[in-house]
Amino acid sequence: MIVEIINTGSELMLGFVLNTHQQWLCRQLADAGYPVTRQVAVADTGREIQTAVRESLTRADCVIVTGGLGPTSDDLTRDLIAELLGCPLHLDEGIANGLREFFAKRKRPMPESMLVQAQVPAGARVLPNPNGTAPGLAMAVPPNMFRPGGGPAWLIMLPGPPRELRPMFVAEVLPWLRREFPLDAPFVCRTLRTTGMGESYVEEKIRGPLQPLVAAGLELGYCAHYGAVDVRIVTRGAEADALADQAEAVIRRELDAYIFGTHEAELNAVVVQLLTERGATLALAESCTGGYIANQITDVPGASAVLLAGMVTYSNAAKESLLGVRPETLAAHGAVSEATVREMAEGARARTGADYALAVTGIAGPGGGTEAKPVGTVFIALATARHTFVLNPTNRYDRPTFKQLTCRQALELLRRTVLGT
Amino acid sequence: MIVEIINTGSELMLGFVLNTHQQWLCRQLADAGYPVTRQVAVADTGREIQTAVRESLTRADCVIVTGGLGPTSDDLTRDLIAELLGCPLHLDEGIANGLREFFAKRKRPMPESMLVQAQVPAGARVLPNPNGTAPGLAMAVPPNMFRPGGGPAWLIMLPGPPRELRPMFVAEVLPWLRREFPLDAPFVCRTLRTTGMGESYVEEKIRGPLQPLVAAGLELGYCAHYGAVDVRIVTRGAEADALADQAEAVIRRELDAYIFGTHEAELNAVVVQLLTERGATLALAESCTGGYIANQITDVPGASAVLLAGMVTYSNAAKESLLGVRPETLAAHGAVSEATVREMAEGARARTGADYALAVTGIAGPGGGTEAKPVGTVFIALATARHTFVLNPTNRYDRPTFKQLTCRQALELLRRTVLGT
Repeated sequence: MIVEIINTGSELMLGFVLNTHQQWLCRQLADAGYPVTRQVAVADTGREIQTAVRESLTRADCVIVTGGLGPTSDDLTRDLIAELLGCPLHLDEGIANGLREFFAKRKRPMPESMLVQAQVPAGARVLPNPNGTAPGLAMAVPPNMFRPGGGPAWLIMLPGPPRELRPMFVAEVLPWLRREFPLDAPFVCRTLRTTGMGESYVEEKIRGPLQPLVAAGLELGYCAHYGAVDVRIVTRGAEADALADQAEAVIRRELDAYIFGTHEAELNAVVVQLLTERGATLALAESCTGGYIANQITDVPGASAVLLAGMVTYSNAAKESLLGVRPETLAAHGAVSEATVREMAEGARARTGADYALAVTGIAGPGGGTEAKPVGTVFIALATARHTFVLNPTNRYDRPTFKQLTCRQALELLRRTVLGT
Repeated sequence: MIVEIINTGSELMLGFVLNTHQQWLCRQLADAGYPVTRQVAVADTGREIQTAVRESLTRADCVIVTGGLGPTSDDLTRDLIAELLGCPLHLDEGIANGLREFFAKRKRPMPESMLVQAQVPAGARVLPNPNGTAPGLAMAVPPNMFRPGGGPAWLIMLPGPPRELRPMFVAEVLPWLRREFPLDAPFVCRTLRTTGMGESYVEEKIRGPLQPLVAAGLELGYCAHYGAVDVRIVTRGAEADALADQAEAVIRRELDAYIFGTHEAELNAVVVQLLTERGATLALAESCTGGYIANQITDVPGASAVLLAGMVTYSNAAKESLLGVRPETLAAHGAVSEATVREMAEGARARTGADYALAVTGIAGPGGGTEAKPVGTVFIALATARHTFVLNPTNRYDRPTFKQLTCRQALELLRRTVLGT
């Protein structure tokens, strides 16, 4: 089973937008057992789209094309593919009525140009779009048309906006793929997410214990992000579930508290959920991360039940007035010090009444480093009812990576402390 | 001149990382007059890489391949391409010595495997890598080898990590491209970035006045982001500079204060620079954006000269204790109201002594909306020495987009006020 993705859009080729479809679709497909072999991006001109689609259809069983289904003059995908496959377009009254309702509900007149989205190539299956106006389309490509001697292929067209494409893919495309291209054998894919250990150390811990399972067919993969390592296990065949269970048990035993979640779990959501379950509250006092941690926490829907307040105290004056850090502490130890970070965390906790308070201070760079405290120096403190914990990592990276990594370390300290591990 | 990009990496095809190379390289190349026709991503296996390179070389004058130059067993690009082009590899003593020095300086033993990075295909040009261990490579592909009747082509190999690839591209590849593939005629590309106006309104304002210049060869493009629209102008030929100057003057006249910068300027950096130049300070009081604005401001190096403090006041209690919002105001008008946002901004300004204080309160969703104040309701206030300005947009989007758009509106209010426009 060969799957290819074609992303269309001149804004992609001019570098004006980031292609988030590639990562999202590749992850969904790989985790379902249909890894993508090739992804192609081309401008939304007739020749480029048709050439790319034709080439993909000489190789692939399923080609997914994104973008170019809307009502404007550069939305050409539908027409070009219908032409390529020799399928005449006809107006689908069901879609047309849906479009009229969409506009009636919003009390806006419908421009006639909208109706182009109701044009459907003969024989195509319509994929409803509850989040926008352009439906998706699935078309069967006759055997031998592009692959001499090959079997039938499918061409799926999806709308460009992520908030339309993603629900459509999950609701329509994935179930259909599973029916149309059943896997030869059961397939299990699991990802265990760890933080606090380097990739080589993670590998070293589990490689030996997993060796017998690898010999029995377990496939192992690693993916390192800053401050986090994902372990991906894949098993196939009649014993796939049992083998995956065994592998997961070994990994959990070896890596234990370093595992913060599975699949696509994110540390911010894990922490918010843990605190919510316990009815516990949080305060933040950030210097060098400058609001990054607060932003991460408040990205999680429902964070308002947990986060009482965050203070971004870049200046010494703010550390004193907002957190009650003592001027003598700042004078004696400096703003980037264990003594200061302790007072920041304890001050944030005392002033907000939160159960937990996290504080960070450090030197993000590029400027501000000294011999004794080089760029990358960080102090992280977590104040609880019983104790204040302090970490002192060195995160020598560019500014955005510094913030991201420091945030992970702070949230992991909080997660471990809340769990008592 | 046809340019194609090939990104290699199994982590791309499994959807574990986002392909930021595509956007960055496409933007650099398009702005230099060498727009990319096609971008391809494949797994880092031998067959996939060779097939993709071979196909690109049947079409392109220049193929840029990223990734797979490092020292580990899945770094295969160098070997596979040397094999494909029939060029034997030899050890380059200069690179090998550089690697030995790299490790000696860090007082670490050099693993022998590192030396694979000193293997150079016969005839290849070495692109130095001051930020890592794997150098880039540029290889001439003989005419007729893959394109019957075609001219010579070039194959450029760049290391995968962005902090190595980007400086190498700017220092080595771009100047070399300009020498090797001089453009037929002068080429000028400028981008003017606007905020506060929808794409169709931007188009409507400038289309008419620019019509004579378009007739004279001006190429116009638009790219809409949430809350921002980029206008891209391209001119060619002997009069390119003059035509671009005329076009820019028309656009500046029509769009005027909506233009916040050129090229890749970002609103956060523009605002920090404006405040720095004036020696002015800023305080932030965020409810619904939850630290997003503080994080944006502190992403700019040197922000500490400007930002005194940021307060993330999710709870009513925090609004009262940290900002001095009166309980009566909250009781009478609610947390999401003009009265509350005014007191938040004025309180933040008074308590920090900042010249400017920005405050936002609103309903990000998905929960929390009511009939009178639906999800997306936002109040933004800017307190200055003379006046407090309030905006009341409706930003009905998913949570991350809501934060991004609200931040843009707040920073634009600040920018306009500081500039007095």
